[in-house]
Amino acid sequence: MQFQLTTDFISQIEQLISVKDGKGLQELLHELHFADVAEILEELNSDDATYLIKLLESEITSEALMELDDDVREKILSRLSPKEIAEELQEMDTDDAADIVAELDDEIQQEVIEKIEDDLLAADIVELLNYDEDTAGALMAKELVKVKETWTVAGCVREMRRQAKNVTRVHSIYVTDKDGKLKGRLSLKDLLTAPEKAHISEVYIPKVDYVTVNTENEEVARIMHKYDLEAIPVIDEEGVLLGRITIDDIMDFIKDEAEKDYQMAAGISGDVEADDSIWQLTRARLPWLVLGLFGGLGSVYIMQGFEEALTQYPILFFFTPLIAAMAGNVGVQSSAIIVQGLANDNVKGSLFNRLIKEVGLALINGLALGLLVILFGTIVGQDQLVSITIAVSMLSVIIVAALVGTFVPIVLDKRGIDPAIATGPFITTSNDIFGIFLFFWISKIILHF
Amino acid sequence: MQFQLTTDFISQIEQLISVKDGKGLQELLHELHFADVAEILEELNSDDATYLIKLLESEITSEALMELDDDVREKILSRLSPKEIAEELQEMDTDDAADIVAELDDEIQQEVIEKIEDDLLAADIVELLNYDEDTAGALMAKELVKVKETWTVAGCVREMRRQAKNVTRVHSIYVTDKDGKLKGRLSLKDLLTAPEKAHISEVYIPKVDYVTVNTENEEVARIMHKYDLEAIPVIDEEGVLLGRITIDDIMDFIKDEAEKDYQMAAGISGDVEADDSIWQLTRARLPWLVLGLFGGLGSVYIMQGFEEALTQYPILFFFTPLIAAMAGNVGVQSSAIIVQGLANDNVKGSLFNRLIKEVGLALINGLALGLLVILFGTIVGQDQLVSITIAVSMLSVIIVAALVGTFVPIVLDKRGIDPAIATGPFITTSNDIFGIFLFFWISKIILHF
Repeated sequence: MQFQLTTDFISQIEQLISVKDGKGLQELLHELHFADVAEILEELNSDDATYLIKLLESEITSEALMELDDDVREKILSRLSPKEIAEELQEMDTDDAADIVAELDDEIQQEVIEKIEDDLLAADIVELLNYDEDTAGALMAKELVKVKETWTVAGCVREMRRQAKNVTRVHSIYVTDKDGKLKGRLSLKDLLTAPEKAHISEVYIPKVDYVTVNTENEEVARIMHKYDLEAIPVIDEEGVLLGRITIDDIMDFIKDEAEKDYQMAAGISGDVEADDSIWQLTRARLPWLVLGLFGGLGSVYIMQGFEEALTQYPILFFFTPLIAAMAGNVGVQSSAIIVQGLANDNVKGSLFNRLIKEVGLALINGLALGLLVILFGTIVGQDQLVSITIAVSMLSVIIVAALVGTFVPIVLDKRGIDPAIATGPFITTSNDIFGIFLFFWISKIILHF
Repeated sequence: MQFQLTTDFISQIEQLISVKDGKGLQELLHELHFADVAEILEELNSDDATYLIKLLESEITSEALMELDDDVREKILSRLSPKEIAEELQEMDTDDAADIVAELDDEIQQEVIEKIEDDLLAADIVELLNYDEDTAGALMAKELVKVKETWTVAGCVREMRRQAKNVTRVHSIYVTDKDGKLKGRLSLKDLLTAPEKAHISEVYIPKVDYVTVNTENEEVARIMHKYDLEAIPVIDEEGVLLGRITIDDIMDFIKDEAEKDYQMAAGISGDVEADDSIWQLTRARLPWLVLGLFGGLGSVYIMQGFEEALTQYPILFFFTPLIAAMAGNVGVQSSAIIVQGLANDNVKGSLFNRLIKEVGLALINGLALGLLVILFGTIVGQDQLVSITIAVSMLSVIIVAALVGTFVPIVLDKRGIDPAIATGPFITTSNDIFGIFLFFWISKIILHF
């Protein structure tokens, strides 16, 4: 059943485009789902893709456009006239249309909006553009089915038939008072099972979760996930129903956030993808490497301060990558758990308890690893005192690294900074420096060099 | 509007439980959403939580049980009798009920199933337990609304009213032939707008996405995400409709996968959380640290092989943490991008092109960082040749690390192994060892020690 994109199929399309065989293309593609059309567009060069967009029904292409990678879409849109863009917008849900307009250059935004024939849609887009990014207002769509509490079930069904045409999926029917203020909700199921003559006010569910236009995306995601909602209504400060957010938008948001956190932990900023340009990838990666470089140079400086150990205990210098790796790994582990816990809201209990737990955990890990180091030392016939020195200082390094990894994200979070920046290179680098200093300092105390 | 759990509220509940004031508790909690009840249960000790579960309506508690952390739920279930568990199951959707039964010890599974009064539910649970984990069969619920193609719209609405009682949310109505084979679908919206006397065969949509019971979860998630589906029907090999998977289950799956990948990248295995026990956390973290330890000991061994440099070029040994950090960071960056690209299916093009790109990227980054190293050397008055040696070998290390980080995940993926294990400590450790060897080897060639 599944559509499988092959290189043969792409060549066939490219061939048809090169001879401008519009009819052949329409026949070949008219049965395809918009998501499959999007996959094809991603494989074509921008001119060919633009040709297809202009050729196919805007009912399909408008949806396909939304599925494209931002940079592919940008290239195609730059090849369309304001009128052509407006035609695509006409077929979109208001939230998608507003997203597209927001991506356009400022100069042509106005022009595109003026070319939209449906005045209501144009007004909706302008309204949505006004809300702050990352808030429910910017995320919501204006399409929804709403009924007044004074209506009868039969009247409601009639009205719904009219409204439902513009709404892709009816999740809930929202009930408002005469001023448009949200009062409750009704499911299609309830409507099907209610007596025809009943008034909505008798059958609706007065309990309804909602968010306001200023609620942040993260909070919207938390509420929808916690209460297993597939759509949530959005109201203004006065309680007037303005729009709704559906689960697919939230899913995209959650996925994007998870990917961003993951990249941040790997030392990549700016939401890049494997097929982005070398320049984009360099911009996302180099700054973190430079941070690591400065950290490394810091270590060089620290070790120069302990140079006197070179003659008596050169072996210590062979252990620095191990110490740095341990400090880095433990720090990343601790921070990853905390960052995830903060995101899922399950970091509970007092800071003191967490401190005890982290130190306990680090002690167990550190002792186990320290024993392995001593065992290794015995096998290779290393001076016993040196082995013990390395084990003890490694244990201290692990404890400090765990504490840094745990508390830096917590402190950042308390100050309203995204704790995810504390995972990855940032923690690794600072733990490297701390760790190496601590290692040599403790060694110096024990070995008296 | 949002429920906010306070410590005062928890104390109040604990107080009421301690005096066994069931009526007071019911009054206090009867308005709460099950997700809020779940939050409360998480804060109580197991005995108190079990008391509440037994006290409150199983309509609420069954849903609350599903929201709990696995370990909290396990503790509560172990305090309930098979009959009490069966009563909770009775209120659950089949997929949730099957998940709960699967979590129980083998001995009492059978006992619990026998205590379920609804024979159909018991049979559904037994059926669902038979499917392989990680497949659509194990993920689906048996609840759905289906109609036969021969029915009229009016008959269909009648039948639906009956079926819809058991289905929390009606996403789609599935249309089958007389043998139960999936033919197509119908939305509630379509049903509302179709003439009453029409036959379903005239109004249904024959195009419907589906998966089979053996489709893997990952593929289900991909299809539902790609085609923006909120529910997908599941069929057997013969095409008979068996169940459906809804978007909320897939959302949980996607979230879990993202968290697992993120943890794996941070060197944590086994899906732990910040509030798990020290023992669970140690088990998840220590193995990766031991891997790092062996890597570090490998570096010790390598450096001992280049011991002769100690007298002439001790500075090289000060640079090892920097080299290791660079190798590790670049490797993690490259692997994170590729692992994410593989998960999102956007790693396209030939291996050779990817090779060129990665080498190009590593060259740009490596040259920039190398210049910084030389600049640093000049500032601190380091021997020019030594600076150049460090820069050149660091450049080589970066290129190799990028190649390892890119191609190890690709090779793993081609062999059907989850590439996510290649991010984090695994890549870092092997790149540390490679990197340090390469660094000293190239230095030896240039500096002739």
